Amino acid sequence: MKKQDKIPSQEVISREPFTGSKKIYVDGNIHNIKVAMREIEQADTNHKFLNKVEKNPPITVYDTSGPFTDPEIEIDVRKGLNKLRKDWILDRGDVEELPKLSSEYGIERLENSELDHLRFEHIKKPLKAKKGQNVSQMHYARKGIITPEMEYIAIRENQRIEEQEGKFGTQHPGNSFGANTPVGKITPEFVRDEVAAGRAVIPNNINHPESEPMIIGRNFLVKINANIGNSAVTSSIEEEVEKTVWACRWGADTIMDLSTGKNIHETREWVIRNSPVPIGTVPIYQALEKVNGKAEDLTWEIFRDTLIEQAEQGVDYFTIHAGVLLRYVPMTAKRVTGIVSRGGSIMAKWCLAHHKENFLYTHFEEICEIMKAYDVAFSLGDGLRPGSIADANDEPQLSELKTLGELTKIAWKHDVQTIIEGPGHVPMHMIKENMDAQLQDCYEAPFYTLGPLTTDIAPGYDHITSAIGAAQIGWYGTAMLCYVTPKEHLGLPNKADVKEGVITYKIAAHAADLAKGHPGAQYRDNAMSKARFEFRWEDQFNLSLDPDTAREYHDETLPAEGAKVAHFCSMCGPNFCSMKITQDVRDFAAKQEQEEGLKQKSEEFKELGSEIYH
Amino acid sequence: MKKQDKIPSQEVISREPFTGSKKIYVDGNIHNIKVAMREIEQADTNHKFLNKVEKNPPITVYDTSGPFTDPEIEIDVRKGLNKLRKDWILDRGDVEELPKLSSEYGIERLENSELDHLRFEHIKKPLKAKKGQNVSQMHYARKGIITPEMEYIAIRENQRIEEQEGKFGTQHPGNSFGANTPVGKITPEFVRDEVAAGRAVIPNNINHPESEPMIIGRNFLVKINANIGNSAVTSSIEEEVEKTVWACRWGADTIMDLSTGKNIHETREWVIRNSPVPIGTVPIYQALEKVNGKAEDLTWEIFRDTLIEQAEQGVDYFTIHAGVLLRYVPMTAKRVTGIVSRGGSIMAKWCLAHHKENFLYTHFEEICEIMKAYDVAFSLGDGLRPGSIADANDEPQLSELKTLGELTKIAWKHDVQTIIEGPGHVPMHMIKENMDAQLQDCYEAPFYTLGPLTTDIAPGYDHITSAIGAAQIGWYGTAMLCYVTPKEHLGLPNKADVKEGVITYKIAAHAADLAKGHPGAQYRDNAMSKARFEFRWEDQFNLSLDPDTAREYHDETLPAEGAKVAHFCSMCGPNFCSMKITQDVRDFAAKQEQEEGLKQKSEEFKELGSEIYH
Repeated sequence: MKKQDKIPSQEVISREPFTGSKKIYVDGNIHNIKVAMREIEQADTNHKFLNKVEKNPPITVYDTSGPFTDPEIEIDVRKGLNKLRKDWILDRGDVEELPKLSSEYGIERLENSELDHLRFEHIKKPLKAKKGQNVSQMHYARKGIITPEMEYIAIRENQRIEEQEGKFGTQHPGNSFGANTPVGKITPEFVRDEVAAGRAVIPNNINHPESEPMIIGRNFLVKINANIGNSAVTSSIEEEVEKTVWACRWGADTIMDLSTGKNIHETREWVIRNSPVPIGTVPIYQALEKVNGKAEDLTWEIFRDTLIEQAEQGVDYFTIHAGVLLRYVPMTAKRVTGIVSRGGSIMAKWCLAHHKENFLYTHFEEICEIMKAYDVAFSLGDGLRPGSIADANDEPQLSELKTLGELTKIAWKHDVQTIIEGPGHVPMHMIKENMDAQLQDCYEAPFYTLGPLTTDIAPGYDHITSAIGAAQIGWYGTAMLCYVTPKEHLGLPNKADVKEGVITYKIAAHAADLAKGHPGAQYRDNAMSKARFEFRWEDQFNLSLDPDTAREYHDETLPAEGAKVAHFCSMCGPNFCSMKITQDVRDFAAKQEQEEGLKQKSEEFKELGSEIYH
Repeated sequence: MKKQDKIPSQEVISREPFTGSKKIYVDGNIHNIKVAMREIEQADTNHKFLNKVEKNPPITVYDTSGPFTDPEIEIDVRKGLNKLRKDWILDRGDVEELPKLSSEYGIERLENSELDHLRFEHIKKPLKAKKGQNVSQMHYARKGIITPEMEYIAIRENQRIEEQEGKFGTQHPGNSFGANTPVGKITPEFVRDEVAAGRAVIPNNINHPESEPMIIGRNFLVKINANIGNSAVTSSIEEEVEKTVWACRWGADTIMDLSTGKNIHETREWVIRNSPVPIGTVPIYQALEKVNGKAEDLTWEIFRDTLIEQAEQGVDYFTIHAGVLLRYVPMTAKRVTGIVSRGGSIMAKWCLAHHKENFLYTHFEEICEIMKAYDVAFSLGDGLRPGSIADANDEPQLSELKTLGELTKIAWKHDVQTIIEGPGHVPMHMIKENMDAQLQDCYEAPFYTLGPLTTDIAPGYDHITSAIGAAQIGWYGTAMLCYVTPKEHLGLPNKADVKEGVITYKIAAHAADLAKGHPGAQYRDNAMSKARFEFRWEDQFNLSLDPDTAREYHDETLPAEGAKVAHFCSMCGPNFCSMKITQDVRDFAAKQEQEEGLKQKSEEFKELGSEIYH
C-alpha cells in the first residue's frame, strides 16, 4: 500500500479534552437543538491582605473542535461523525434521497473495486432538493424562516453573553467602520436578516449534516479557514483527516480541502464525514486532474460533473474563479508575479488557448442551479489576486473584483449564498482600499481574504507577515481570514505548521473582534489579565488559545510545580516582579487607607467624647 | 564556577557569513569613514522561450550584524570589537580620559579580586566631556556640525539607493501620516536637521566606540530593539554575549541589557565591548539590586552612582521612569493589571513609601548633566503603560505621557537626546490615538514602543499578538519597536526565542517602512518576488530575512538538490503550479504576438508586391 492510501485509524485522531475545560451544550428556544460550547473553569483569588476569597466565574468560549473534545461522545472515524443536522434537513420536506450518485465520475470511483481498500465504508445516498425547490439558507431567510441552523448560530455566536455580562469587567467601544455590529445579544432574527441581505452566509450543504452550523459575515465573530490537502508529492488520507480534526481543535471555523494528489475524491469523503466544520474546495483542481493537468482540455461538462460529484459528497462551499475574464488576462503580463492563484492561472490558460470567455462565467447561471439544489455557497475566487507587494491593487485585481460583484448579484437572484475571495500580498497602507472596494463593488457580500501578506521578504514567517494584514482587514470588515502557515511559498504544512497557522489566525481574528468592539469579545482578555495579575498560572494556561504551548514555555524556565503557584515568574525573579510590587503598592495603599480610616474613626471617637455606645 | 559566571569563548559566538552575501564598505565623502552593508548576489534569469539570459543585479541591504559576519575581520571576544569611533570622538577635542572610574560601585567591582575570573580583561579608562563641554550629537547638530556619525548614518540608511534605483522596479507611494519622509536620498544634512530638531536620536556613548552609528527617528528606517539579560534564576555571561551577537545578526538595531541577576556590572562590560549596536539599560534595576530589592531603600545618590557607573562603561541610552509621579500612582489602583512596568512599579513603591515625589523627576536636570557628559540618550520610560487590553489608553498612562513631554523639553534644553517609551497592551483601534498623543505631547521626539500587544489571550504567541500592533504603530510613526519573544509573560527567552522575536519585529518594521513609503523600501520585496516567480530558489533563500529557515522548510518537503532548480514546488506539483502556468500564459501570449507579427509582416510583404529589396 502506498503511503497516500493510508486510511485513518482511531489512534491518530486527537481527542484529548482541553485542560481545565468542559464541553457544555446550550438548548435552543425555537428549535430542539443543543449548541456546543466550551467552558473554562477558574481558580479562586485569595486576597491575603484583605483576608478574603474571591470566586472567579467560569468563562464560556466559542468552540470549533466538534465532538472530538467531548469525552462522553464515542467517535469511530471509519463511520464518521453523528449527523447533527439530518432531521433538520429532512423535516423541511424539500429534499429527496437520490437512488444513486448523479455524477459520472462519482459512480465510476464508487464502482472501482481497486479503490475498496481506501474508500470510506459508510457512504450514504445523496440528498438533493426536490424539483423546483431551493434549499439554500438564503432562500429560507428571504422567506422569513428561522431555521434550526440560524438559531444554532445565534446561540453559538453569543457564547452565553447574557450570563457573562458584568462578570468579566467592561469592554472598550470599538470602531467597526460603519458595520451593522449587533448591540448586546445576537438574536436568531438578526442571523436571518443578515443572511437574507447577503451580508452573511451559512455554508451548509445538505449532504454534510455532520457539520455544526456557523456563519460568515462582517457583523459576526471574525472566522478563520485552514487549508489542508495532499499533493502529488506528499501525505496520506489519514494525515489529512487528522489535520482536519487538529485544525478544528485549535480554532479553524472552516476547512478547505485543497488536495491535488491521487484519490482526491476518496480523501474528501473521509474528510467531510469527520469534519464538524464546513468544508470548502476548489473544484477546478480536481477537474484539471481529470484532464491530466492540461488546462486547455477542460470542458464545461467535466467541470459540471465535478461540481455535482463534490456537492453530493457534502462540500459546503466552492471556490469558483468565474471572474477571470478573457480581457483581464493580458493585463497581468506586466506584473512582477503574473497570476499566482492556481485556479486563476488554469482559467487564464484555458481562455487564451481557446480565445474564448471563461466557461465558469458563461455558465454561471447553470452553476447557480447546482448550488441551490444542495445549498453549496459560492466563494467567488480572486484568480487575479496579487502575488507580490508590487502587484497589489492593480488593474486586473480591481477589474476582477467588479466582475465578482456582478456575479454576486446573479447568485443572489437565485438565492445562492456568496462570499468573495480577496488578496493576497498588499502593503498595509493599501489594505483598506481593498476592503472599501469590496464592500462597494460586491454589495457587502462577505469578504474572505488570504492574509494579506504585508511584505514579501520573509518566507518561513509568512503566517506572521500575513497575520499583520489579516488582523487589519478583519478589523476593516473582512468576515473570514484564510490562514497562512510558516511553510507558505516553501512547502506543504505538517501538523505543527497547521497549528501554528491556526493559532496565528485566531489571534488576528480576535484582535479584529476587539477592534470592532464585537459584543463580549473582551471578556476572555479581561479574565486572562486578571489571572495574570494574580499569578493564577494554571488559569492563564487554560484561558489561552494554546494552553499546551503556554504551559510548556513556562515549564522550560521554571519547571517545578511550585513555580505554578509562585507569585513571580522566571523573567524577573521575586525582587523585580512588577506585578508583585504593584500588589505591594495596593496593599500599602489599602493599609494606609485603613490606618487613615482608623485614625479618622479614632478622632471621631474622641470628638464624640470617647463614649463607646451612643 | 557557577553557570552564571561562565565567560564567553570564541567558539560559541556566531560568525558565519550570510549565504550568497558579502560584506561591503561604502566610503564617506565628508569624513574618512567606511560604512558597512551587506550585498546579496542573484543568479541570472534564463528566459528559455525568448532565448535570452537576463542579469539580476545584486541588492544592498541594511546590516546590523557588525564585523561578526565579515570573515576578513579577526575578532577576539575577550578583547572586544575594534573601536570604530575612537578617533572621531577624540578628534573633536572635547573629551578627556579620566584617570579612574568616577563611580564608587564601579571602583569597588574593579578592585574586587573575587571577580577576576569573570571580569572582561581589557577595561579601558573612561572618557568624559571636558568641563563645560557637551558631547551629545544633538549638541553638535544644533551647532551645525555634521559629525562622522551623521554622515555614516546617512550613507547607511540609503543602502546605496542611488545605485539601486531603477534596477528593482517601482514602489508604491506610501502614506506616512504627515511625516517628514525624505524624498529620494538621505543626506548628512537631513540627519543633522532631524537630530537638531529632536525628531531623531543617535545613541552613541563616547565610551562605546565599538558601535556602528545608527539613528532612531520617524523619518528614517523603522528600527527594532532586542532585550537580553540574565536573571536571578538563569543564564550565563557567555549566553548573554552570544545572544547579543545573535540578535544583531538577525537584525536588532539596538540591544537592551535587562540583566537582573548577579554580576550585572561584569555582564554589561562583556556585552558592550562586543556589541556593534547601541546598548540600552534600565539603571533602576541595578540600583534596586544594590539595596537588596527594597524599593523604599533607593536613594538619589545610589541611583546617581549607577548612572555614572553605566555611562562610563558605555551604555548608549538609559530608560528612566521619571514620569511616574506620586499623584499618578493612585490612579492605577482600579486597573485590571496595575503597574506592569518593573521600573514603574519600583518608583511607585518608592513614592508611596516616602510619600514624596519621584526622585528621578526632582533630580531630572542633574541627570541631564550626566547624560550630556557621555552622550547617553534618554529613553523616558512609560512606567504606567497598560499591561492589559482593559487598561489601554487610561488616565495614568496618558497623564504620564504628558509629563514625559514636559521632561523632553527640559532634556532638549540641555541638548540631551531623548526618545519616549510607549505601550504595552492596546487593541488595534486604540493604537493610533497613542501615536497621535505622543507626537503632540512630546513634540515629535521619537517614539519607542513595546509591541503593542493587540490581545491578551495568546501567551506563547505574544511575538505575534504584538507584531500586529507594532507594524501598525510603526506605520503611524513609531521610530523603534521593542521586540517581544514567544516567551513573553511565561519565561526567559533562549537563543531560538531571541531569533524568533527579532525576525518577527524585522517583519513589522519593514511592513511599516513599506506602508510609509520609505525611499527604496520595496526593492528587496520586488527582488524576492521576481526570484519567486522565476523559481530561483537559492536567491529566494538568500534574499529572505532568515535564509536558514526558508531553506530548511523548503528542504523538509523537497530535500533533493534538483528541487532547488525545479520550476515548481512541493505545494502543488508541476501540474498545479500557478506560476508555471502563468509562464506558459506569457509564452503563449508572446508566441501569439510573434505569429501575428509574422503574419502582418507577410501581408505587408504581399502588399508591397512580394519584392524582397526595395
